[in-house]
Amino acid sequence: MSWTKAERYRSLRDVSALEMETLRTKTAASPWRFGYHIQPPTGLLNDPNGFTYYNGEYHMFYQWFPLGPVHGLKHWYHVTSPDLVTWTDRGVALVPETTEDSHGAYSGSGFVKDGELHVMYTGNHRTDDWTRHTSQVIGVLRDGKIERRNVAIPDVPAGYTEHFRDPKVWLEDGAYYAVVGAQRTDETGCVVLYHSVDLDDWTFLGEIKTGLDSFGYMWECPDVFELNGQHVLVFSPQGIEPDGHRYHNIYQSGFLIGKLDVETLTFTHGAFEELDFGFDFYAPQTTEQDGRRVLVGWMGLPEIEYPTDRFGWAHALTLPRVLTIEEGMLKQRPVAEMTTLRQDTFLDASGTSISVATPDRYELEVKTDGSDFTLDLLQVENESLVIRYDATAGELTIDRTNAGEPFATEFGTTRTKAIHVTSLHVFVDSSSVECFVNDGEAVATLRVFPSELEKQLRYEGATASLTGWTYQ
Amino acid sequence: MSWTKAERYRSLRDVSALEMETLRTKTAASPWRFGYHIQPPTGLLNDPNGFTYYNGEYHMFYQWFPLGPVHGLKHWYHVTSPDLVTWTDRGVALVPETTEDSHGAYSGSGFVKDGELHVMYTGNHRTDDWTRHTSQVIGVLRDGKIERRNVAIPDVPAGYTEHFRDPKVWLEDGAYYAVVGAQRTDETGCVVLYHSVDLDDWTFLGEIKTGLDSFGYMWECPDVFELNGQHVLVFSPQGIEPDGHRYHNIYQSGFLIGKLDVETLTFTHGAFEELDFGFDFYAPQTTEQDGRRVLVGWMGLPEIEYPTDRFGWAHALTLPRVLTIEEGMLKQRPVAEMTTLRQDTFLDASGTSISVATPDRYELEVKTDGSDFTLDLLQVENESLVIRYDATAGELTIDRTNAGEPFATEFGTTRTKAIHVTSLHVFVDSSSVECFVNDGEAVATLRVFPSELEKQLRYEGATASLTGWTYQ
Repeated sequence: MSWTKAERYRSLRDVSALEMETLRTKTAASPWRFGYHIQPPTGLLNDPNGFTYYNGEYHMFYQWFPLGPVHGLKHWYHVTSPDLVTWTDRGVALVPETTEDSHGAYSGSGFVKDGELHVMYTGNHRTDDWTRHTSQVIGVLRDGKIERRNVAIPDVPAGYTEHFRDPKVWLEDGAYYAVVGAQRTDETGCVVLYHSVDLDDWTFLGEIKTGLDSFGYMWECPDVFELNGQHVLVFSPQGIEPDGHRYHNIYQSGFLIGKLDVETLTFTHGAFEELDFGFDFYAPQTTEQDGRRVLVGWMGLPEIEYPTDRFGWAHALTLPRVLTIEEGMLKQRPVAEMTTLRQDTFLDASGTSISVATPDRYELEVKTDGSDFTLDLLQVENESLVIRYDATAGELTIDRTNAGEPFATEFGTTRTKAIHVTSLHVFVDSSSVECFVNDGEAVATLRVFPSELEKQLRYEGATASLTGWTYQ
Repeated sequence: MSWTKAERYRSLRDVSALEMETLRTKTAASPWRFGYHIQPPTGLLNDPNGFTYYNGEYHMFYQWFPLGPVHGLKHWYHVTSPDLVTWTDRGVALVPETTEDSHGAYSGSGFVKDGELHVMYTGNHRTDDWTRHTSQVIGVLRDGKIERRNVAIPDVPAGYTEHFRDPKVWLEDGAYYAVVGAQRTDETGCVVLYHSVDLDDWTFLGEIKTGLDSFGYMWECPDVFELNGQHVLVFSPQGIEPDGHRYHNIYQSGFLIGKLDVETLTFTHGAFEELDFGFDFYAPQTTEQDGRRVLVGWMGLPEIEYPTDRFGWAHALTLPRVLTIEEGMLKQRPVAEMTTLRQDTFLDASGTSISVATPDRYELEVKTDGSDFTLDLLQVENESLVIRYDATAGELTIDRTNAGEPFATEFGTTRTKAIHVTSLHVFVDSSSVECFVNDGEAVATLRVFPSELEKQLRYEGATASLTGWTYQ
C-alpha cells in the first residue's frame, strides 16, 4: 500500500464526515476485529500513551492515524476503564495543529497535577525540506480534549539528533522527572533525563549511564520506575541483530533491572532481557496505582503489512499485565480483573489427549506435569497455531507457520524460548494470542489471522488439566 | 433544543470528520444505548426504509439525520442481518444531494429487480421561499451506496397537496405497484396507487377507496399486502383524536383487514385497529421472505423530546414481528430467531409472588391462570415500570408514571388495552420494553429511561410461571 505524503499528512479536520463514515463502515465490516482488546475505530493504532489512573478511572490514549493503516499524521485517541478490562471509547483527544506538532502528536505519558490529568508528548514538525524538528509539549485534559499548556523542551540538546522523543514523566520528592528516548549524534541509542519543579522550566540532567554504549541506533519509549526495591528501565531499542532465539522481530522491547543513582545518573544493572518472546509486541508503557505496576504494550510493529490493512485498520493494544520482581526475576501476570470477563466454562478436562471446539475468544489455563506437549489453539482444516514444548531441550516454541493468512514471514514464523514449562495461561481474541508461561515467568504476544471457521483446540502430551472460559 | 434551518440542513459532506467523531463520542458515552436493537451511531433515526431480503441477507435502511437528535436533512443509513436479530452497520447509503432530494431523502421501500436491490423513496425539495416539492425517486444499491436510477413520479397529481410520500412498491403479475401516502387538498389523508411495467413510466391509478374519508389530515407510510388470503392495508394516520383507551399517542399506526379490488380500487374492510398499544411506535414497514411477513416499526414518534437528546441521539427500530391472520385477527409475534439471543436463564419460577434481580437486557415469558397480577419490570428505589392486569375489568395497563426520567407526559403516562390476559412475552433492552400479549394478540412498545442501578423484577398476583433469559 503506497500513500503519498499529502495523503498521510491529513487530520480529522481536513476530511469530511462522509469520508470518515465510509472508513468506519469498511473497518466495522472487517474480519478479525477484537472482542476485548483496545483497537482503533479506523486507521492505525500504535504506541500506548498517557496511561494514568485519574478521577476514579484508568485513562489510556494511543497513537492514532485515523485515515488508513499507515503511519500518517498522528492524533491521540482516548479510552477509559474502571477496571482495566472493559474500555469505553472517549474519542479523539488531540488533533495535531500547532507549530510544534504540525506533523504529528507523537508518544508521551500522563500524570496528575492539581487535580488535572496532564500529559507530556513529543511534537513533530517538518520544515519545507522535510527536516524533522522535535519538541516536548505539556497538555492538560479538559472536556475530553488535551489543551496545550506549554512547550517544556523546545529543542534537542547538543550531542543528540532529532530522534528525540517519548517523554515519560514521574513525580518524586515534589519535583518532576522525565526520561526521553534519544539517539546520539554517533547514531547509537540512549535515554536522557530531565528535571523540573514547576513543569515550566526543565533542566537537562544528562544521559542515564547504562554502559550499553552501542546497543542499537535508537531507544524509543523509555520508562523508569521502582519495583520491589529495585529500579527498572524499560525501553525499545531499534537496530539489534538476531542472536540465537532472541531479537527476531524488526524491533525489540526489553528491560534492565538494577539501581539508578540519581546523583551520578549511573544505572548499574543485569542483562537486557526481552519483555515478550512473541512476534508482535513493542513500545510498552506502565503506570502505577495502589502499589500495582501495570504494563500495556502495542500489539504490533512498524514497517510490516498486516492482513487487516486491506480493511483500513491495523493493530491493538495488549492486555494489561502486572509487573513484580520476585527472586530477582521480572514477573508479568495478567491483571486479576481479567477473570470478570469469564462467561461459560467451555472446557474442564484432564488427560493426555484433549480436543474441543472453541469459541472465537477465550481464556485457557493449562497445567502440566512438566513433560513434552503440543497445544494447537486454532486448528481448522489446514490451519493451526501450535505451541510445542520439548522438555529435553527445555524449549517452548510458538509456530504460526500455518496459522491462517501469512504476514511478516521475512522475520520467521516460529519463536522459541528456553524455559522449563509447567503451566500456560492463554488469552485468545479474534486475531491475537497472549500466552503467559509458568505464572508470569515469560510472555509471548502474537497476532494471527485464521479463517472464519469453527475452530478446534487440540492438546497432546504431558498429563495436564485444561480449563477454558468463553469471552465476549 | 432549538436548531436553525442552517444547522438542520447540513449533510455529512458539509461537516468535518472531527465534528462527527465528537458526536460519535458523545453518543457512545450515553446511558440507555441499546444492546440488541437497531440504533443510530449518532443523531436521529426515524422510519424503517427499504426493508428487503436480498442476496442472502435482510437489508434494512432507516431515516437518519446524523448531526443531532432533530429532524434535519434526512440521509439513509444501512444495516444488514442474516437472521433479523444480529445486525451489522453498513454505513450511510444515501446522502441527499440532487435537485429532487436537496432537502432530504425521505422514506421509501425496497425490492429486487434483475438481481439488484432497488429502492423507491420520496425526494424532498424546498424552494427559496421554503415551499415543499416532493417527487418519488428510484435508486439501486451498488457498492453500499444507493445510486439514483430515475425520477419515477416527478409531481404530485391534481387533488393532492405536497404531503405526498413514502412509496411502498411490490411486484405482482410481472408489473410494479406502488402505494403512496397522501393528503387531499381538503386536508384529509388517504392512500393512492401507481402502476408501472418498467419502473420508468408510472401511471396514477387513483385513490384506494376505504370509505374513511375524514380520518385524520395525512396518512403516512402505507403498506399493502396479502396475508392468509386477505388483504391488509397498514398506514400511519395523523390527526386522530383520543377515543376511550385508543389513540393517545401524538400520531397513530394501524391497519385494515379486507379485500382490495384492483379494478375498482375499492377496499372493503373491518374496523381500523392500532398495531401497538404502547407509547412509542410509528411508521412500520413490512417485507416478505419465504412466505413470512415481517414488520418493523420506528420505536419513537415525532415532535417529542426524549431524554437521550442531550447525548446527541434519539430512537431505535422495534424488534421484527411476524404477522399472520388467525380467525380474522391480526397476530404479531416476535420472530423465532429471537431465541438465538438467549444467554443464561436468570429466572425460572412459579408462584404468586416472585422477585429477582434482573440484567439490563432480557427476555421474559409469563404464563398466568388468568386472574389479576402486577408485574414491575424495572423496580429500583423510587422507580418502577408496572404492567397491571385487572381480570374483572378485562384490562391490561402499562404504567410508566414513575419509570425513571419522565418525557412525553403531556400524552399521559399510562396505556390500557381491553384484553383477557393469560400470557406475556416481554423483551427488555436498556431503554425499551416490547410486550407481546397472549401469543401475539396485542403488542405494546415503549421507551423507558431508568436509573443505571441494579434493578429488580417483582411479580405479584395470579399463579404464574416466569422464565427469563439474559440478553447481551
